[in-house]
Amino acid sequence: MTKSNSHDSELRARAEAVIPGGMYGHQSVRLLPDDYPQFFSAGRGARLWDADGHELLDFMCAYGPNLFGYGDAVIDAAYADQLTRGDTLTGPTGLMVELAETLTGMISHADWAMFCKNGADATLMALMIARAHTRRTTVILAKGAYHGAAPWCSMRPAGTTPEDKANQILCDYNDVASLEAAASAAGEDLAAIFAAPLKHDAFVDQVLPDPAYARRARELCDAVGALLVVDDVRAGFRIARDCSWSVVGVAPDLSTWGKCIANGHAISALVGADKARRAASAIYATGSFWFQAAPMAAALETLRRVRQTDYLEHINRLGHRLRDGLAELASAHRLGLRQSGPVTMPLFLFEDDPDLRRGFCWSSEMLKQGVYVHPWHNMFLCAAMTDVDIDQALEAADGAFQSLRTQIPHLAPVEKMRFLIS
Amino acid sequence: MTKSNSHDSELRARAEAVIPGGMYGHQSVRLLPDDYPQFFSAGRGARLWDADGHELLDFMCAYGPNLFGYGDAVIDAAYADQLTRGDTLTGPTGLMVELAETLTGMISHADWAMFCKNGADATLMALMIARAHTRRTTVILAKGAYHGAAPWCSMRPAGTTPEDKANQILCDYNDVASLEAAASAAGEDLAAIFAAPLKHDAFVDQVLPDPAYARRARELCDAVGALLVVDDVRAGFRIARDCSWSVVGVAPDLSTWGKCIANGHAISALVGADKARRAASAIYATGSFWFQAAPMAAALETLRRVRQTDYLEHINRLGHRLRDGLAELASAHRLGLRQSGPVTMPLFLFEDDPDLRRGFCWSSEMLKQGVYVHPWHNMFLCAAMTDVDIDQALEAADGAFQSLRTQIPHLAPVEKMRFLIS
Repeated sequence: MTKSNSHDSELRARAEAVIPGGMYGHQSVRLLPDDYPQFFSAGRGARLWDADGHELLDFMCAYGPNLFGYGDAVIDAAYADQLTRGDTLTGPTGLMVELAETLTGMISHADWAMFCKNGADATLMALMIARAHTRRTTVILAKGAYHGAAPWCSMRPAGTTPEDKANQILCDYNDVASLEAAASAAGEDLAAIFAAPLKHDAFVDQVLPDPAYARRARELCDAVGALLVVDDVRAGFRIARDCSWSVVGVAPDLSTWGKCIANGHAISALVGADKARRAASAIYATGSFWFQAAPMAAALETLRRVRQTDYLEHINRLGHRLRDGLAELASAHRLGLRQSGPVTMPLFLFEDDPDLRRGFCWSSEMLKQGVYVHPWHNMFLCAAMTDVDIDQALEAADGAFQSLRTQIPHLAPVEKMRFLIS
Repeated sequence: MTKSNSHDSELRARAEAVIPGGMYGHQSVRLLPDDYPQFFSAGRGARLWDADGHELLDFMCAYGPNLFGYGDAVIDAAYADQLTRGDTLTGPTGLMVELAETLTGMISHADWAMFCKNGADATLMALMIARAHTRRTTVILAKGAYHGAAPWCSMRPAGTTPEDKANQILCDYNDVASLEAAASAAGEDLAAIFAAPLKHDAFVDQVLPDPAYARRARELCDAVGALLVVDDVRAGFRIARDCSWSVVGVAPDLSTWGKCIANGHAISALVGADKARRAASAIYATGSFWFQAAPMAAALETLRRVRQTDYLEHINRLGHRLRDGLAELASAHRLGLRQSGPVTMPLFLFEDDPDLRRGFCWSSEMLKQGVYVHPWHNMFLCAAMTDVDIDQALEAADGAFQSLRTQIPHLAPVEKMRFLIS
């Protein structure tokens, strides 16, 4: 199948001139197969159109924000309607209070809420509140866990200083002994344990939380009065209608939210328990657009949908169908495919694939058949997906496995992924 | 005049339960006169309606974002129209390239652009790029200058650590000797000089930049290969249609933009010169909503208006009318009123008013007459304002000065502003 990508090529050339590196951040395709489009023209439901008009069934869902489908008519109408009344004003509207009441009503550990724009705004506020609450500085993080692109948590050192990562102790996710050693090293200075709801680091298999690990994190915080933080920015509302650690029976003091809470409109949130309220009011945190009313209107409709529909059961059912179907197909084609994480946030990695040449080949074959999958980052299901979409994905996967099978002996190394081996 | 504020009171009571301190950040009215509304219901043009339906001529313009009027029909239609096609997707649209081309075409020192959400995202990226470019760490900032609410630049210490402010040297704005001493202290480790386009710190008179100071900052950077950054998030496009330091003939290497560049829709930007391009592509910076298409569509229309209309001459003319009229009225009422900063971003402070009791009284009197002014933060004019609005403001000011004059002997101390004296 020959595809035209002239618009994408033209946009890339123009971008090269006016955007550093042609594109930056998590949506750069620099570490994706060469045939992946960089630019898009539209989204509707579970589907994307690239800049050249190719329709794609999209398993990235904008890296999370798309929970109920791109361009959801009701959610976007709530946004547009509020826009006609007022959005960024000299102060907040009553929608901010309503949204705080709504979130604290849905998230069982939450007594109050604060709103911001980036997920990283919420995680930074959590860090500051933990330090203000305890008057201590040390925080424990899991190695490789992503809590935002800010210097304090960024993986890439360029432009950061050693001081940016001061007062941090790293542990291994799900390793109780490692967590205990970190807490012991922090001693009386422990301000917080920061936890991802699951291990959803890029490039490696995802791992669900061990309830014993989650409980121990809670105990270690309680033992010295530190705060437990769950960073639910990425996984929020794709595991539970409550904080994601509610499924392992552990309530944090603070949790951070973003991405899908307004179905793609720009708003994130930090919610917390009463004990951290005073510290939350003591820090200074704000932003030019944090009190915009239109994203709050969209969030209220999105959260109503979270509470009142079976979206979670629906995406779980579709996710199981996809996982089971792929396992069967991969096995039939004698390919080792590891599927990890919640079925609503799947990650696919091939066995014997250190530089991802199999993953890249298979993903490209999927793309050719109109299905957008990611070779090394967890994906996302959305409620706009249907059984027909899963049928399409599985049919595409069958062909893609077949094609990969024949190409395996000839696959060239993936130079851009060489860093994974070294 | 008796005003009902029952809706505001009810919202405040509800907010007290679910938002730390009832409200946080720059739009909290905690440090404003007690009769200022906390919650609003609508905005249109230059006018706001508070939660109880009182119409207010708004000189805060959402703390800057409102440049062409709240709810501008054409800009908001550009937003809403793009929303129907696609907003937060799995990658950017061509609008991102078009917007980068547009900004680099308008800002004379800029060869490339990056987009983000908060002004603080842009200033943090500038900091990181300067450090990546120079492989050094020290930055020079002016005392009291605001570059965002993040711990590296926050004024309030709660929740921050000493390491957050490591590698910084402070100087006095417009003081060449102080700047030279800071550069000398930084020596070979100077990564950047961060400059506000004018001294627009809260609580004190604004001061325009001394061209000699700006030129010296440029020279000191060039002498050691450091980058000069102008933080135009607040003042951008209210002083020039280019970077604000273009009026003093100094081109920075990086400048940061936000607030009004999409007339209130959530987008900010960092632009830079070619020499910093490689470093800009080396840092890791991203956010869930940074590549939203709808705010970019709104920005394109806003920037077209910046280029093609006389909005700047219009708000300058209205600003001069307001300044001259207020000076005349204050003098007639034998009140010492200091007006500082650009006329498009005015700040009013009374003489002999250390705890702002006069400013609070006068501002409250203005509010009673339907004009929203700020007693200690610079204000903003917008292009939707008319001569009739300035007439209204001056008429209100006449009455407010009169009322203040009679109340001065009896004004009580402003407890919440006592920190200004101590």
